[in-house]
Amino acid sequence: MTTRAFYFKNNALYLLDQRLLPSRLKYVVCRDYAATAKAIKDMVVRGAPAIGCAAAYGYYLASVEKEFVSPAALAKHLARAAEILKAARPTAVNLGWAVDRMSRAARDHSSVDAVRRRLLAEASAIYKEDEAMNKRIGGFGARLFLRKSNILTHCNAGALATAAYGTALGIIRSAFRAGKIKRVYVDETRPYLQGARLTAWELSREKIPHFLIADNMAGHFMSRGDVDAVVVGADRIARNGDTANKIGTYSLAVLAAYHRIPFYVAAPSSTIDPSTKDGSLIPIEQRSADEVTQICGCRIAPRETTALHPAFDVTPWKLITAIVTERGVFRPTYKFNREFSRKGGRLK
Amino acid sequence: MTTRAFYFKNNALYLLDQRLLPSRLKYVVCRDYAATAKAIKDMVVRGAPAIGCAAAYGYYLASVEKEFVSPAALAKHLARAAEILKAARPTAVNLGWAVDRMSRAARDHSSVDAVRRRLLAEASAIYKEDEAMNKRIGGFGARLFLRKSNILTHCNAGALATAAYGTALGIIRSAFRAGKIKRVYVDETRPYLQGARLTAWELSREKIPHFLIADNMAGHFMSRGDVDAVVVGADRIARNGDTANKIGTYSLAVLAAYHRIPFYVAAPSSTIDPSTKDGSLIPIEQRSADEVTQICGCRIAPRETTALHPAFDVTPWKLITAIVTERGVFRPTYKFNREFSRKGGRLK
Repeated sequence: MTTRAFYFKNNALYLLDQRLLPSRLKYVVCRDYAATAKAIKDMVVRGAPAIGCAAAYGYYLASVEKEFVSPAALAKHLARAAEILKAARPTAVNLGWAVDRMSRAARDHSSVDAVRRRLLAEASAIYKEDEAMNKRIGGFGARLFLRKSNILTHCNAGALATAAYGTALGIIRSAFRAGKIKRVYVDETRPYLQGARLTAWELSREKIPHFLIADNMAGHFMSRGDVDAVVVGADRIARNGDTANKIGTYSLAVLAAYHRIPFYVAAPSSTIDPSTKDGSLIPIEQRSADEVTQICGCRIAPRETTALHPAFDVTPWKLITAIVTERGVFRPTYKFNREFSRKGGRLK
Repeated sequence: MTTRAFYFKNNALYLLDQRLLPSRLKYVVCRDYAATAKAIKDMVVRGAPAIGCAAAYGYYLASVEKEFVSPAALAKHLARAAEILKAARPTAVNLGWAVDRMSRAARDHSSVDAVRRRLLAEASAIYKEDEAMNKRIGGFGARLFLRKSNILTHCNAGALATAAYGTALGIIRSAFRAGKIKRVYVDETRPYLQGARLTAWELSREKIPHFLIADNMAGHFMSRGDVDAVVVGADRIARNGDTANKIGTYSLAVLAAYHRIPFYVAAPSSTIDPSTKDGSLIPIEQRSADEVTQICGCRIAPRETTALHPAFDVTPWKLITAIVTERGVFRPTYKFNREFSRKGGRLK
């Protein structure tokens, strides 16, 4: 049973509506770029690599959603689509990266049809590359576990957050297949509950043994020796290895360090941003307080109470045992400079 | 506006149903010990001292809920009531303490009526002593803050968890009145959301400035220097100072130590159990997984997913900067031996 955040068929992008999981399996169908941008904005699809893939297909849809009298008319329409798609989520690094890559692929073709063919091939390549990268991350990561282990993870860095297979969950998938997973502890990940709703769902589908826990229980289980390693994803990694990821990741990293438990970050190298010197320069998206004060439409706090809702936090490189990418396993001190990027041929 | 978890009137115990707060203010009326024990078990009332008070009144109710032919018949009924009440929640030491104190008060009376009078006076004394103790705790605790401070608290150790005024929130109340509180960071405290539902509600009623945060955000705000101290309550304190409190407390203590932020425990000395050598001997209540997998009646995880739900964790004494009791402020190393208890005249 393959878990996918989306599929593309007959010029339509089918996005699994992640807001409704795990109780309902429903797809949102996008037949043009505007619908795709809206779905990204509304978090039908989430997770930086998955957003990148969806945006790439959205960009392709812009080329087929109507007729164009000339390649120039198409180019004009695509420029508008790129702008709208990139604005859908402000922070995801992969979104801009994917749209820019599609824009480059659209250049210098003799006919509208040639552009279309090229764009479909490029979106498909972005998809396939992401899946392949995740499988490589999984392979590298699985080798970190020498014995059958209990892994704790936070948020969802799974198939649903990527093209397929997942980054942190990719490691867990590969390690499970290699007989190295005893049990996964899944942080529920308030306020959006990505752990409870998405990660637990992915693990259930693949029959990987797991326990759901409230975020505040992690330290307790670590203190009892129940956790052998922590594996999380990343939204952005600075040049020095400082890592922005879902709020709560930093607390876990401190707890892991205190209990001398390895703390691993899994991410494609496209998540590494050498232009950001350190974590203090990563902007933290502040989301609505209502997402904290309400759960499932039920208000959990008095009306007079205001909540704070930073969507991410930054884990300093010193607390990260290793960063696992498709290019291998990196350990401190991290030096993700431009030289590193050029070698990857993936980042500008 | 006085916030009270319960009141006693005309041989009935009115328990504010804390499961419905903050959206509904409704009282559960208990007219016998069985109803009281059930309400304690079902968490209509929670918080170790409040449970102790409720159990004391429940024990008294056992003496008036029916007629008895002799003091011996009453004694037999009370013994049964004591057993049921004490079994309602396993971790809170005050529950057993209050019931034992009531049992002693019931001894050696010439008539059923004399026992009843004595028991009502004793329950009332337990209530009044708890309120007075909390005010003393508040006074001692407020003096810990030399400048206007941001305090983080977890769960609810407030008026709702005690006879009145609260322990950790008692300190916050007293400090606020002394002009020493800038802002309170309220951990929502999954899975039961006592922070969001109860602590935020108490603070709202008294117009003490506060922010609600998800439990996993605490480390993030500490790292930014936004938290000057952590103040929490306690369910049981071992002889060496190891403290059992709501799940999540231990993680906070580790985070506070990492950030060099003082971590204070507030509790009446009846919470101290000199017969428990250290925290490893404190039984941890395991509650239903459904309390984690469901919020507001809405299932947040797949049906196949099992959750773990330890209701408490244990914070080792080394992570506790000071324990604030009605008898003063204690600092490590803690030696809460029987000698300490005898001086208090409160514990056996």
